[in-house]
Amino acid sequence: MNEQADGAPRGRSARVQASVHTAVRELEAEVGRDGLTVPLIAQRAGVTPSTIYRRWGDLGQLLSDVAVERLRPDTTPRDHGGLASDLTAWAEQFLDEMASPAGRAYIRDALLGDPDGSNAGQCSAYAADQIDVILTRAAERGEDTPGVETVVDHVVAPLMYRILFRPAGLDAAHARGLVARLLEGHTAEK
Amino acid sequence: MNEQADGAPRGRSARVQASVHTAVRELEAEVGRDGLTVPLIAQRAGVTPSTIYRRWGDLGQLLSDVAVERLRPDTTPRDHGGLASDLTAWAEQFLDEMASPAGRAYIRDALLGDPDGSNAGQCSAYAADQIDVILTRAAERGEDTPGVETVVDHVVAPLMYRILFRPAGLDAAHARGLVARLLEGHTAEK
Repeated sequence: MNEQADGAPRGRSARVQASVHTAVRELEAEVGRDGLTVPLIAQRAGVTPSTIYRRWGDLGQLLSDVAVERLRPDTTPRDHGGLASDLTAWAEQFLDEMASPAGRAYIRDALLGDPDGSNAGQCSAYAADQIDVILTRAAERGEDTPGVETVVDHVVAPLMYRILFRPAGLDAAHARGLVARLLEGHTAEK
Repeated sequence: MNEQADGAPRGRSARVQASVHTAVRELEAEVGRDGLTVPLIAQRAGVTPSTIYRRWGDLGQLLSDVAVERLRPDTTPRDHGGLASDLTAWAEQFLDEMASPAGRAYIRDALLGDPDGSNAGQCSAYAADQIDVILTRAAERGEDTPGVETVVDHVVAPLMYRILFRPAGLDAAHARGLVARLLEGHTAEK
């Protein structure tokens, strides 16, 4: 597949990807997730089914790619003026988006049609990048910060694990508690 | 479906489940995961395909049920004489089993063929039950222990999240570090 150095497709390849992704989003709204088929998507996108099979392998892998696109954050984390407030607001919003019916469906699709794990890795990278923005901003303020991987382990992971495996009792208060515990623990380590 | 109070099937229902699960395990070894079909499984199990469709809905839900059975711990956590050593040994073994190619495949099957989330919840309950055994044993020794949900958030969740989304650099040392941090943090809270 025709790619730029950053791995993003270009030219015809990019146009095919855009039209196929758009077709999936439109058709999902019209016929629902279970009504999607490769021939239906190909027809709407104006490509042949073999183009889709050649590029994505199967419907699951296409839906996984579309899900990852939808899980891409469209804004940088808001600056609330402090690490605790920035991280708390981010964790609450992350939980909100990922625990929504749409968010759960995208996470499942991203994991499901992803034999090599690259799409799941991309979802995790989105979260890590946003956390990195928050931590860098805090460090620039002179605040003392934990590492990105520590925030992933103790804030992102518990939220995502509970969304997938243990949703009972998962709420914004739990997200706030994870951040508070992380920052207390971090201060305690000084 | 004919069930006992505890939800476990009995009588013919239990025999059908046992023979179908056995057929899946045998055929998976013979033809591989991707070669499995409902008619093939039904033939091996000596039931009609409609029996399988009626009971499990589709192949994904059957494979999810089989995966959960395989993820059921077959032993209680070993007693190493102390909370830190018990929890560390458990976390290392949990990572070992879940991060193995078979473990990853079962987790994916359990999650993906599970529209209502009950199988994912069962996987999480297996881990929580084992942790509860370890914490209860520690409390009986007079050790001061964190709660089960805290261990789930800060040991189980980071391991499972990284297995699914962020496997790079995940190893036994990371598992040990999560337990050490949890127990230090817990002591610090006193």
